[in-house]
Amino acid sequence: MAHALRLARRGLGNVWPNPAVGCVIVQAGRIVGRGWTQPGGRPHAERMALDQAGVLARGATAYVTLEPCAHHGRTPPCAEGLVAAGIARVVSAMTDPDPRVAGRGHRILRDAGLAVTEGVREAEARELQAGFLSRIQQGRPFVTLKLATSFDGRIATAGGESQWITGPQARLHVHTMRMAHDAVMVGGNTAHADRPSLNVRGLTTPRQPVRVVLSSRPLPDLPPEGVMHGPLWRIDAPPADALAQLAEAGITRVFCEGGGLLAASLLRAGLVDQVVGYTAGITLGGDGLPAVGPMRLDRLSDAPRFALAETRRIGPDLFHRWRRIAPS
Amino acid sequence: MAHALRLARRGLGNVWPNPAVGCVIVQAGRIVGRGWTQPGGRPHAERMALDQAGVLARGATAYVTLEPCAHHGRTPPCAEGLVAAGIARVVSAMTDPDPRVAGRGHRILRDAGLAVTEGVREAEARELQAGFLSRIQQGRPFVTLKLATSFDGRIATAGGESQWITGPQARLHVHTMRMAHDAVMVGGNTAHADRPSLNVRGLTTPRQPVRVVLSSRPLPDLPPEGVMHGPLWRIDAPPADALAQLAEAGITRVFCEGGGLLAASLLRAGLVDQVVGYTAGITLGGDGLPAVGPMRLDRLSDAPRFALAETRRIGPDLFHRWRRIAPS
Repeated sequence: MAHALRLARRGLGNVWPNPAVGCVIVQAGRIVGRGWTQPGGRPHAERMALDQAGVLARGATAYVTLEPCAHHGRTPPCAEGLVAAGIARVVSAMTDPDPRVAGRGHRILRDAGLAVTEGVREAEARELQAGFLSRIQQGRPFVTLKLATSFDGRIATAGGESQWITGPQARLHVHTMRMAHDAVMVGGNTAHADRPSLNVRGLTTPRQPVRVVLSSRPLPDLPPEGVMHGPLWRIDAPPADALAQLAEAGITRVFCEGGGLLAASLLRAGLVDQVVGYTAGITLGGDGLPAVGPMRLDRLSDAPRFALAETRRIGPDLFHRWRRIAPS
Repeated sequence: MAHALRLARRGLGNVWPNPAVGCVIVQAGRIVGRGWTQPGGRPHAERMALDQAGVLARGATAYVTLEPCAHHGRTPPCAEGLVAAGIARVVSAMTDPDPRVAGRGHRILRDAGLAVTEGVREAEARELQAGFLSRIQQGRPFVTLKLATSFDGRIATAGGESQWITGPQARLHVHTMRMAHDAVMVGGNTAHADRPSLNVRGLTTPRQPVRVVLSSRPLPDLPPEGVMHGPLWRIDAPPADALAQLAEAGITRVFCEGGGLLAASLLRAGLVDQVVGYTAGITLGGDGLPAVGPMRLDRLSDAPRFALAETRRIGPDLFHRWRRIAPS
C-alpha cells in the first residue's frame, strides 16, 4: 500500500477533477502490475495496473489507495474490471466519498466473491486525497498558501525591491508545489503589479496548472493558454464564492501565491488548509511590505492556527509546512 | 576534545569576563580528571581537572579547549600548573587571543619539555569562544537577537494582544538561551511597556544574567538584584557604544529580546551575530506589531544576511537559528 500511495502521488495536480489513485497488483509475492491515475484523470490506476498484469492478475491481490469506482462514466467501472480480471483479493485504503461510489465499489467486489480489506493506511490516503475530499465534502478545493519571505515576514524592502528574497533552490521547489496543485491563484493587485507567469518551469509536467486571478479588474496582458501555460480564469467574487466556483469546475487543489490582501482575506475566512513558508536569512524591517495584509484581529484566540507538519532546509532557506488546526 | 568542548559549554553565560574552557586529563586511555571554568570564571578548567587527577596527572595527556593561561592573575598560570603536575602532553584546540596569553601558554609548556598539539577541533572551539573572541578582537560582545513571532513575523495582534504567541516549550527554551548569555538586553520602550523580568526561571543557573536596558529614560520599577535577578544596568548610548561599554565591563555574550526599534537598529548597524527565531503556527496580519522595526532599506543587497545553522521543532513551534554572513 505504501508503494501504491507513492504511485498515487504522481497524479496530484494533473488528474482533476478525478482523484489521484495508485494501484499495485501482487501475484505470489511479486508485483505484476502498477498503475496510477493518468494525466487528465484517465485511464484510472486500476485499469493501468490490470493491463500491465494481463493474465497474471488471475488470483492476485490488488492494493488500491481509494475504493474502486462503481459508476459507468467514459470507461467501465474499475470494480467490475477487477472482477473480470480474476483478482482474488482487494486491499483498499479508504472508501470513496463520491456519492456515485460511496461503498458501492467495495460491494461489487464482495458480491463477486472477492476478499476485501478496507482502511489500510487510511490516514495517509486521506491526506493524499485532501483536495478531492474537500471538493466533495466541503464544496471547495484544498487551499495551500505560499509565503516566501524574509526572516521578519517581508516580501519587499521599504524601497520596493523584491527579487529575489529566497534562493534558486526554493524557487524551484515552488514549481514542484505548483505542479502538485490543479490551480495557481493570485489576487488582482499581484496580477497587475508582477504579471506573474503562474506556470511550472524547470520541471516536466504533464499538465500546466490553471491560472486563477481573483479580481474585479480586467486582466493584465498575460501569456495565452498553451504548452507552457494553463487556462487563465478571472473570477470576480469574494474568496469563498470563488473557491466554490473552482470546485464546481473540478479543481481540487489550489496553490495561492498572494498577494497580502488575498492571503489575509483567505486566512480571516478560515479558507487556508495548509501554509508553506520559505524563509530567507535576511531581515528587511517593519517598513518592508508584509506577506500577509491587515487582518483586523484583536485577540490572539481569533487568529487562525496551524500545526507544524514538516521543516527542512532548501538551499540557504528554511522550508516549513503547516496544516490548519480546526477551530475548537 | 569533543568531551572537553561539551564540558566547556557548561560555562557559557556564567564565567564572564573569562572564557568558558573545558579540560579532560587522560592517563593510559582512562579519564582521570575533568574540569570546566567555574561560575564567575574561577577556578579555571585545568585547575579543576588537575585537582581531580591528583598524582594520576603524572605522564598523562591533557585536552584543553583553549590555550592554557600564562599570566599571573588571582591564581597562578594554568600552563605552569600543568607542568608542575607532570603532564606529558597537551592537546589544545586553539590559541588564546588574549594579549596576555597569545601563544605564551603553549610556549611555557614546550619550554618545559611537554609535547603540544594545537588546533584540534579548532572550528568548534572558536564557535564556543565566539563571545570571548568578539570581546577581545572587536571590542564588543557577541550578540544574539531573539524573534518570537507569528508565522507572518508579528509579535502582537492589531488589538495589542501578545501573550502568548509561542508555546510553553519555546518559552522554556528562551530561558536556556538566557542562561547561556552573560547579559539580556531590551530597549527602553519594551522595558516600560512589558516590565520584563529578564531572568532565568524554571532552570537552575549558577549566575543570573545581567539585565541591560538601552534607554535615555529613567528605568521603570523592576525587581532589584538578588538571587532571582542579575544586576540591572541602564545604558544611554547608541547601540554600538553601548555594546563597547558592555565589553569593557567584561560581558562576552548578549541576548537581545527586543523591542522592534532596538532590533532594527542593531540589524542596520551590522551588530547582530546570530538570530534565533521561534515561529508559531498562527497568522496575525500585516496590521499586527512587527518584530523588527523600520530599517529604511531600499535595496535587498543592503539587508543583513544570515545563514541557517539549525532548525527543529520545539513543542508546537518552529525553532531556527541563523548566523551572520560577513558582508562581502
